[in-house]
Amino acid sequence: MTRYGKRADLIVHEREPFNAETSLAALAEGPVTATDAFYVRGHGAVPEVDPATWRLEVRGLVERELDLSLVTLREAFREREVTATLQCAGNRRAGLIAIRDIPGEAPWGPGATGTATWSGVALADVLALAGPLDDAAHVGFEGADVSPEASPVQRFGGSVPLDKARRREVLLAWAMNGDPLPPVHGAPLRVVVPGYIGARSVKWLRSIEVRATPWEGYFQHVVYRLLPEDGTPGPGAGMPLGLAALNADVLSPANGATVAAGPVEVRGYAFAGGERYVARVDVSIDDAASWSQAELLDDLGPWAWRHWRTVVDLAPGEHEILVRAWDSSAATQPEDEAALWNPKGYVNNARPRIRVRAVAA
Amino acid sequence: MTRYGKRADLIVHEREPFNAETSLAALAEGPVTATDAFYVRGHGAVPEVDPATWRLEVRGLVERELDLSLVTLREAFREREVTATLQCAGNRRAGLIAIRDIPGEAPWGPGATGTATWSGVALADVLALAGPLDDAAHVGFEGADVSPEASPVQRFGGSVPLDKARRREVLLAWAMNGDPLPPVHGAPLRVVVPGYIGARSVKWLRSIEVRATPWEGYFQHVVYRLLPEDGTPGPGAGMPLGLAALNADVLSPANGATVAAGPVEVRGYAFAGGERYVARVDVSIDDAASWSQAELLDDLGPWAWRHWRTVVDLAPGEHEILVRAWDSSAATQPEDEAALWNPKGYVNNARPRIRVRAVAA
Repeated sequence: MTRYGKRADLIVHEREPFNAETSLAALAEGPVTATDAFYVRGHGAVPEVDPATWRLEVRGLVERELDLSLVTLREAFREREVTATLQCAGNRRAGLIAIRDIPGEAPWGPGATGTATWSGVALADVLALAGPLDDAAHVGFEGADVSPEASPVQRFGGSVPLDKARRREVLLAWAMNGDPLPPVHGAPLRVVVPGYIGARSVKWLRSIEVRATPWEGYFQHVVYRLLPEDGTPGPGAGMPLGLAALNADVLSPANGATVAAGPVEVRGYAFAGGERYVARVDVSIDDAASWSQAELLDDLGPWAWRHWRTVVDLAPGEHEILVRAWDSSAATQPEDEAALWNPKGYVNNARPRIRVRAVAA
Repeated sequence: MTRYGKRADLIVHEREPFNAETSLAALAEGPVTATDAFYVRGHGAVPEVDPATWRLEVRGLVERELDLSLVTLREAFREREVTATLQCAGNRRAGLIAIRDIPGEAPWGPGATGTATWSGVALADVLALAGPLDDAAHVGFEGADVSPEASPVQRFGGSVPLDKARRREVLLAWAMNGDPLPPVHGAPLRVVVPGYIGARSVKWLRSIEVRATPWEGYFQHVVYRLLPEDGTPGPGAGMPLGLAALNADVLSPANGATVAAGPVEVRGYAFAGGERYVARVDVSIDDAASWSQAELLDDLGPWAWRHWRTVVDLAPGEHEILVRAWDSSAATQPEDEAALWNPKGYVNNARPRIRVRAVAA
C-alpha cells in the first residue's frame, strides 16, 4: 500500500497534489476497477472534511435554497447506484507529448480512467426539492479543494447543462464499489457525471449553484478546453470539453511484450461517452488492411465501458496490433494521433496501437 | 413546381416511390430549408390518408391503450415547436459509390438533409397518458406507407429508446415551417426524432407501440444497419443506426466552380447529431497543413445544424477547400472517405472537400 490506500503499482505523476494513474494490468483485472487501483486526478491537496459538520449548500436560480447534512441526504432521498466509467480529459496525453512537448502538463499514459459502482442520491432529486427557476440552464459544483495551479487560486469547480443534471444517472455519491467513498476520491460526497470528462465529477462537494450560464471558474473557463493546434490558453479560448469522447485501449498483452506465436488473446476496453454506447470493436494485425470484430464482454449498463476480447493468430516475428472502436452514432476513433495534438494535450482518442513480438514455442 | 409541390431543382433519384434530394444552392439559401425544397426519402407510395377518419393507436406495454383522433391530439395536449435537422443515413452515398459500387442503392449526393421548424405535440405527453409499464424500453412507430422493397412487404417503421422518446424534443408533428404538413412529408402526422437518422422520423404515423425490445421490422432489423466492409446484410447483422453522426458540407461555392481570385466566401453547414452540438468548424486550403476557424452563424437551438462562413484568400489557380467540423464531445470528422465504405453505403461523414478554380479578375 502507498499513500491514500492505493496499491504500489499505481504510476504516480505528482505527489502533492496527488496524481496517479492505474496500470493497464490492473485495468485488465476486470470491468470494475478496484478502488485501491483507481486513478486519482487532484488539483489541490486532499481537503480535511469532517462529515459530522459538513453541509451541502444548494443556491442560485432556485425557488428554495437548501443547506443539507449528510444525515438529511441519506434520510430524505432514495439511494441510487450507477456503474460509471470516469476518464480524465488528459488520459493518453503521453502519446501527444511524444509528437510535440506539452510543457507544464503531466504525461498521463492510458490509465487515467476506470470504472466503479457509485452509490448516493440522484442530483435530480435534490434539484427537484430546490426547484430550478425558469432561467436556470446549468448546474455548477464547487469542491472544498483549493487549487494553487488556478489563476486566481480558487476551489475546484465546474458545471453541466441542467438537462444533463436532471437525468437520473448523475449522482451525489458517498460510496464507491460498496464501501464509503475514500478521502482521496472526494469523501464525504462527490458528484459523478457519467458520460462526461472526469473533471465534471467534482470531489469534496460543498456547494451546488443553479445558474443561467456555464461555470466561469478556472477549471472550465480557462482549462479543460480544446484549443486549435496554434491556439493560446486564455479565458474562453477554445471549446469547452464536456461530453467524453469515444476511446479505447489494449489492456493485454502489454505494449512491447513478447508472446508465444500462434493464437494470442487480445483484451481491452472501449468507452463511448455521452449517451452513446459501444457498438463494435475491430482489431487489425495488418495495419488496417483488414479487421476482425472483437467480442464485447460484460454489459454493466449504459454508463460503463465495455471490456472486449479477441484472439489473433500471430506468426513468429514483430507485429503491430491496431484497434478501432465504433459508437452507436456510427463514429469511430481518429486514425492520426498527430492530428489530435493540441496545446493542453486533451482528448487523445486515436486508435490504439501496440507492438508485440511473437516467438515460436 | 414538380410533383408533390416540390421545386424543379430537386434532384430526383426515383419517381415511385418518390425520392429526391435538395440542391446545395437551395440549402445555402438559409439555415431553415424551404418546404418546397426539402428532401424526400420514401420507401413506398405516398399513402392517401383522410385526416377526418385517421386515428393514432398507442398500444403495447402501456397501462392504458389509446386511440386518438387529430382533434383530440390538438385539444388534449400542448402544442410544441422544435427546429430540427433531418438527415438520411444514405446522405453522401455517392461519395462511397465512387470508391466501390453499391448496387441497388440510390446514389444520394449531399442534399439528403434539411432543417425545418416542426409543430405538434410532444411524444412524451402522449406516452405519459398511456403510462409505459416497467418493462417498457423502446417506442416503435409504424407508418401507413407499405414498402414493396421490404422483405416481407410491410409498412415502414422503426423505434427509439424510451429514454429518448420521453425527451421533450421528440414530436408528433402536423406542421412544417408554419404550414400544414404536406402529404409527401407524412400528413396528417409524422414523428420527428431530432438527433437521430431520418428513418426514425416515421411519416404517416398510424400506431405507436411501447416495447421491451427494439423494432423487429425490416427497416431497423435488416437495413439501416452499419455493416463491416466485408459484411452481408441480414436480420440483425451489423450495428443498428440511430443517433446521427457528425457531418458537414460546403454549400457555396459549388464543387468545380470558377471564382474570382482574392477573398472568397465559403459557406456550409455542420450537424452534430444526438445530444452533441457543433463546437467548431475548420477550413483548410493547403490540404490540412493549416486550418482557420469558420464563423458559426444563426443558432436555431440544440437540434438544428449550424450554418457557417469564412473567407479564404485564393491566388489564381486550382484549389482544394477542405472542411472538418468538431462536436461538443471533441470528436471530428473522419479523414478517409474510403475507410467509411460499407455494403449499404450509410453514414458517409468524411471531411468534405471541394475543388475550385480561381481566376484573376
